[in-house]
Amino acid sequence: MAVQTEAGPRTIVQNILDAVRAEGRDALTAPEGRAVVEAYGISTPGEALATNPEDAVAEATRIGFPVVLKIVSPDILHKTEAGGVLVGIKNAAEAADGYRTIVRNARHHNENARIVGVQVQQMLTQGHEVIVGAVTDPTFGKIVAFGLGGVLVEVLKDVTFRLAPTSRATAKQMVEGIKAAEILRGVRGAEPVDQEALATLISRVSDLVTDFPEISEVDLNPVLATSDKATAVDVRIIVGAETEPPSRFTREEILASMNRIMRPASVAVIGASAEAGKIGNSVMKNLVDGGYQGRIHPVNPKATEILGLPAAKTITDIDDDVDVAIFAIPAKFVPQALEEAGAKGVAGAILIPSGFGETGNQELQDEVVAIARKHGVRILGPNIYGYYYTPEHLSATFCTPYDVPGGVALSSQSGGIGMAILGFSRSARMGVSAIVGVGNKADLDEDDLLTFFEDDDHTQLIAMHLEDLKDGRAFAETAQRVSKRKPVIVLKAGRTAAGAKAAGSHTGALAGDDAVYDDILRESGVIRAPGLNDLLEYARGIPQLPTPKGENVVIITGAGGSGVLLSDACVDNGLSLMRIPDDLDQAFRAYIPPFGAAGNPVDITGGEPPSTYRNTIALGLEDPRIHALILGYWHTIVTPPMTFAELVVDVVDEYRARGIHKPVVASLSGDVEVEEASEHLYRNGIVAYPYTTEKPVAVLGAKYRWARAAGLL
Amino acid sequence: MAVQTEAGPRTIVQNILDAVRAEGRDALTAPEGRAVVEAYGISTPGEALATNPEDAVAEATRIGFPVVLKIVSPDILHKTEAGGVLVGIKNAAEAADGYRTIVRNARHHNENARIVGVQVQQMLTQGHEVIVGAVTDPTFGKIVAFGLGGVLVEVLKDVTFRLAPTSRATAKQMVEGIKAAEILRGVRGAEPVDQEALATLISRVSDLVTDFPEISEVDLNPVLATSDKATAVDVRIIVGAETEPPSRFTREEILASMNRIMRPASVAVIGASAEAGKIGNSVMKNLVDGGYQGRIHPVNPKATEILGLPAAKTITDIDDDVDVAIFAIPAKFVPQALEEAGAKGVAGAILIPSGFGETGNQELQDEVVAIARKHGVRILGPNIYGYYYTPEHLSATFCTPYDVPGGVALSSQSGGIGMAILGFSRSARMGVSAIVGVGNKADLDEDDLLTFFEDDDHTQLIAMHLEDLKDGRAFAETAQRVSKRKPVIVLKAGRTAAGAKAAGSHTGALAGDDAVYDDILRESGVIRAPGLNDLLEYARGIPQLPTPKGENVVIITGAGGSGVLLSDACVDNGLSLMRIPDDLDQAFRAYIPPFGAAGNPVDITGGEPPSTYRNTIALGLEDPRIHALILGYWHTIVTPPMTFAELVVDVVDEYRARGIHKPVVASLSGDVEVEEASEHLYRNGIVAYPYTTEKPVAVLGAKYRWARAAGLL
Repeated sequence: MAVQTEAGPRTIVQNILDAVRAEGRDALTAPEGRAVVEAYGISTPGEALATNPEDAVAEATRIGFPVVLKIVSPDILHKTEAGGVLVGIKNAAEAADGYRTIVRNARHHNENARIVGVQVQQMLTQGHEVIVGAVTDPTFGKIVAFGLGGVLVEVLKDVTFRLAPTSRATAKQMVEGIKAAEILRGVRGAEPVDQEALATLISRVSDLVTDFPEISEVDLNPVLATSDKATAVDVRIIVGAETEPPSRFTREEILASMNRIMRPASVAVIGASAEAGKIGNSVMKNLVDGGYQGRIHPVNPKATEILGLPAAKTITDIDDDVDVAIFAIPAKFVPQALEEAGAKGVAGAILIPSGFGETGNQELQDEVVAIARKHGVRILGPNIYGYYYTPEHLSATFCTPYDVPGGVALSSQSGGIGMAILGFSRSARMGVSAIVGVGNKADLDEDDLLTFFEDDDHTQLIAMHLEDLKDGRAFAETAQRVSKRKPVIVLKAGRTAAGAKAAGSHTGALAGDDAVYDDILRESGVIRAPGLNDLLEYARGIPQLPTPKGENVVIITGAGGSGVLLSDACVDNGLSLMRIPDDLDQAFRAYIPPFGAAGNPVDITGGEPPSTYRNTIALGLEDPRIHALILGYWHTIVTPPMTFAELVVDVVDEYRARGIHKPVVASLSGDVEVEEASEHLYRNGIVAYPYTTEKPVAVLGAKYRWARAAGLL
Repeated sequence: MAVQTEAGPRTIVQNILDAVRAEGRDALTAPEGRAVVEAYGISTPGEALATNPEDAVAEATRIGFPVVLKIVSPDILHKTEAGGVLVGIKNAAEAADGYRTIVRNARHHNENARIVGVQVQQMLTQGHEVIVGAVTDPTFGKIVAFGLGGVLVEVLKDVTFRLAPTSRATAKQMVEGIKAAEILRGVRGAEPVDQEALATLISRVSDLVTDFPEISEVDLNPVLATSDKATAVDVRIIVGAETEPPSRFTREEILASMNRIMRPASVAVIGASAEAGKIGNSVMKNLVDGGYQGRIHPVNPKATEILGLPAAKTITDIDDDVDVAIFAIPAKFVPQALEEAGAKGVAGAILIPSGFGETGNQELQDEVVAIARKHGVRILGPNIYGYYYTPEHLSATFCTPYDVPGGVALSSQSGGIGMAILGFSRSARMGVSAIVGVGNKADLDEDDLLTFFEDDDHTQLIAMHLEDLKDGRAFAETAQRVSKRKPVIVLKAGRTAAGAKAAGSHTGALAGDDAVYDDILRESGVIRAPGLNDLLEYARGIPQLPTPKGENVVIITGAGGSGVLLSDACVDNGLSLMRIPDDLDQAFRAYIPPFGAAGNPVDITGGEPPSTYRNTIALGLEDPRIHALILGYWHTIVTPPMTFAELVVDVVDEYRARGIHKPVVASLSGDVEVEEASEHLYRNGIVAYPYTTEKPVAVLGAKYRWARAAGLL
């Protein structure tokens, strides 16, 4: 807050909002809006309210021509469409005529509109039009928006969003971050606009909606930005009901529950069954076959023993503490069983059954959540396949056990996507710490998982499929913290309008505007995967690669054609091809034939023996100015695929032993033997693919995006 | 040509260009430029040339204020940067002052500039700024450009290109095809601009550069477009040397050569060898092992027999007609051997060796081309792996034979990419008619191949990797024709600035501007693949799919989560999710559980038996309003992967037998068994992939793009 007035800005705004509320309005008039933003130190053009044509002439003369005339009516929001705006009024006669025209148009547009008068406003003819606004987003709460204004940009939708409160530094990033930012910096000899003034204006809008949560929308459109200031020409403010912030658990509370849920000493299976094909049987088998070493308690009122384990009639009857209760019973039986589990003191209730919110039965879901809250139980699901945590050999799911331990933790909102994760992981032998179904997210959601995985030493990377966020702000804040330590990859389904519609029908979740998700996820350090396969490949590849120490990427290729495609992929993925210094260029040239091309890509040409690959790769690893290598291999008789793979592993290992760790990825072009060679490379920490120049570079690009966001570069 | 003047437009322009040339200039002055475009019926604002301040006042008064003043000097091209433009001159005093200021600025900018005077121009204050231009592109020759003008769009680069001559219909498409086209149609109550007038103006620019090839550049920037006309405010015209059009063969000549090259009755291998590891040995082995049934003649001065076949000392000594000579000898020996092969009457010389243009030895390459021309021999290469044509079991290459016949013809400019094509094809068992290396393209290039494959009954689709086009116009014209009959897929490497640089160092080819390639390839009906893997997957998948009969795509999914991602992919790939009519919605609902979601996607939910998949898929095939199906499968015990795959093949076959052919693609989510199930589906004409929702939809999208471009929808 910058500018102080006599009454104090908060008091001024509060008084105006009280008056608006007292009149039962939700939109502020233009003069009210102007007074509100001025109280927060935002400049507006000279203006006055005229209530008859003579007034209009007098005020226009005082303010100075040219002026703009605008209808003032609480019932007319879109003034232009109502014929309620006249620009370029040059003299007294035009002012008087203009007043009459506008009022006539407004009556014609809405005969019942209450007309307060006509606003006479100084007409600013200089400067760039920009838009600054704030809205209450259903997912993220208060967010601020900044974009270039004018009809053209409205069509091209060049706008960026951030969570409010927005720091001045973030506001500055917004000003610098739109696609057409170059315009504001001054092009073709034009003066740059005052970007500091714009950033200040944005942060003041942020202050305003943070101080007054009942303001649901602020629209400063246009703001005119010149070389020395930013002026809000038109102000539109809407008030709404104050929404209650979602209830949250503290980090300590989350960890206390999650630690018991992910590393339970004992689990109960409510609805355990001896009958093959039943979910309660699959869960029991997976717990046992998966190698879980904790205590397993089947619960079934009609059985005494299941899979050789003594069965209890109810969870109450179990003569042991229980950390986790896995529910494999129909939805309608869940409330009663959850009451019992709560009384027993479980930390987590894993609700596999469907038949809750996703089928329209929100009431039952709410009832179940209330029971859980009462007992301090956290719910996973409902409507899920369950979850895996490999460090405990825990496969609490009706799918199949998973047994390749490793550093990747995955979650999915959809069961189908969960199965794709499982199949891909098994096929690619991807090392996994956890796979978690979150389903309806009645309680536990992605930010709880992030909080657990953040401190979980078994987890190096977190990859999440999601269709919505129940509390986008909590997720963003958690991700911001976690992504500094571990990469967080998100596949946000329902990206597009059509996709968003399908999300609506699937989960009943409100589909967020993708542009908002995109900006806020990026700002939180999250790496967004464009598709399912990218999510999986990023998850698999990123932990394999050491974190680069700088931006200098070098391509070394035996196939010039691959070099071109790899270069294209570098640009697509935001990677910087290093400009090779002369001495380094000479050093590369010493190893390659005279008709090869040094520079970057380093084209060693196709007919070369293994030593050429080895020497150039070793040089790339050795020189500290190079930070990452992309290899393009071309299958020849002279250097067959496995020879290439083995020499690469060998030379990379040699440098690792010397403490030199650089990310190395490879694209292999050749006959089918390149498949086995790629696998050999991948198994040894070199992210390698056959028949594609895009994938290895995309994985390296994702690693770089994370490293930049985490401040490691 | 629309407007006729007394002297005739051609004469007017010719006289001006002659005068410019006589003075040794390459840039026209503004008045000259204006006269040229006016001769071609393009309106310009009222204007006059003033040679002193008094003149400026008089002319401005005559034209009417406000006016713009602009320096006129053959030595100052960028007038704004020289301080040579003043806008909004409102009265006589400003006009006189302005004249002096501009001349002073111009002298300051370039003290030697010849100053003709100052142009006094009517200032148009209404309308949208657009840019219309024409340039001589090194790849495509004369092209016209259209974009929205103004500083903002210059930054966002919203411009589109077409080959000149440009029909009025194409010009109209340009106006409608830019990203911000909505602006020109009128947004927020603004009047639409006269798009017909803009199209006319574009086609007149096209006429101008077509009539006068020596005009290398026309830049009308801005053109002001209003609701009733389009006026070229600023005209910049540059003349250059007339470039000779590349020499071309007729379609008949190309086919006569290509038919002998692709279906030779006999081939000679110059440099055939019995020594394993030699290229001349690999080629011999591949011809023999590949099963080629024609006559094979090894040529080697030192051998009498190779692989059991009698060897000739030179090609001259072969006692047989020879259609194709494959060269497996060092570059320096090629000219002499080619003379002999030419004298022998071969149709094609397959130049495997490197050491020509790509290593800087352009002279040797030119010599070889001259020899070929003299004898009427066409050259493939040099610097290639050779070529395959499976209908003849011909593997004329040093790689390995390929033996899965099918409808896909592929070519690559790079050997490395050729090997990737080979490996992918073998791994995916992709049916191939031909794989051709084009290398340096000293002679035969992509448009020759297109011409052959167009008429080749064995080829259904053509997929090409290219880094440049030697004659972009010939390619575009040929592709335009061929793509009407068969899909043409192109991977253009060197898309990006960094990529283009690498292309430069690899082939010495001038890298084209990608935006030009993109527009012109699209206009030619070519489907562009964004990457290597896409090229391969499109090539493999598109021929599997029948051509859809309409735009209505329906997703049927067992996994709601897949449905959302598949919907996203539809939007990304330009597919239209059908709005399901009520009766059809009811029909789907009859088969799915009450909590499933009809609409589109049709979400049958996860726990359903095979019959639910079968019934809904059958309905999708049966209903003639649905034109394509995307299936999302979710692995469950109730409907295991192979059960799903078999039922889909079964029901699709059933409808095929009834003459109903619709494209069906599938995304399979599940454990590793979905891999085998996907393969089974693919083998039966359903393009299916595990662990990805993107790929099957991308292939369907590519099929649709082709069908639309070919006018089949």
